[in-house]
Amino acid sequence: MADIKYEIVEHLGVLSESSKGWKKELNLVSWNGRDPKYDLREWAPEHEKMGKGVTLTEEEINQLVKIMNNKE
Amino acid sequence: MADIKYEIVEHLGVLSESSKGWKKELNLVSWNGRDPKYDLREWAPEHEKMGKGVTLTEEEINQLVKIMNNKE
Repeated sequence: MADIKYEIVEHLGVLSESSKGWKKELNLVSWNGRDPKYDLREWAPEHEKMGKGVTLTEEEINQLVKIMNNKE
Repeated sequence: MADIKYEIVEHLGVLSESSKGWKKELNLVSWNGRDPKYDLREWAPEHEKMGKGVTLTEEEINQLVKIMNNKE
């Protein structure tokens, strides 16, 4: 598998933590040196392993927040 | 691969659309008949195929919105 370089540019917050210490986090992550994107993903306790997740552009996350803020 | 049953209980909104017509959507989805969860995922134009995504509990998505709303 190809090497993926990433850098957590900013820790924005933790959404939840599992009983095994994995955390679902929102971060700004730069993948392969590109501009950072919002990244919603599970991480092992020391960020030594990452789980599945999605990346979102600024526009996408703003749209997500707008949808939630406008609910009921 | 095991059969996964899902039902899109509520379409909450579209975050973006790719040039091929795939949409990144926020929905309430029930997986295997369980209680619906928030689901952030890419879908083919007619929902006939799904891409990668994450599911979020109500608490997790509220936390996400709170983090974003509190960002300057």
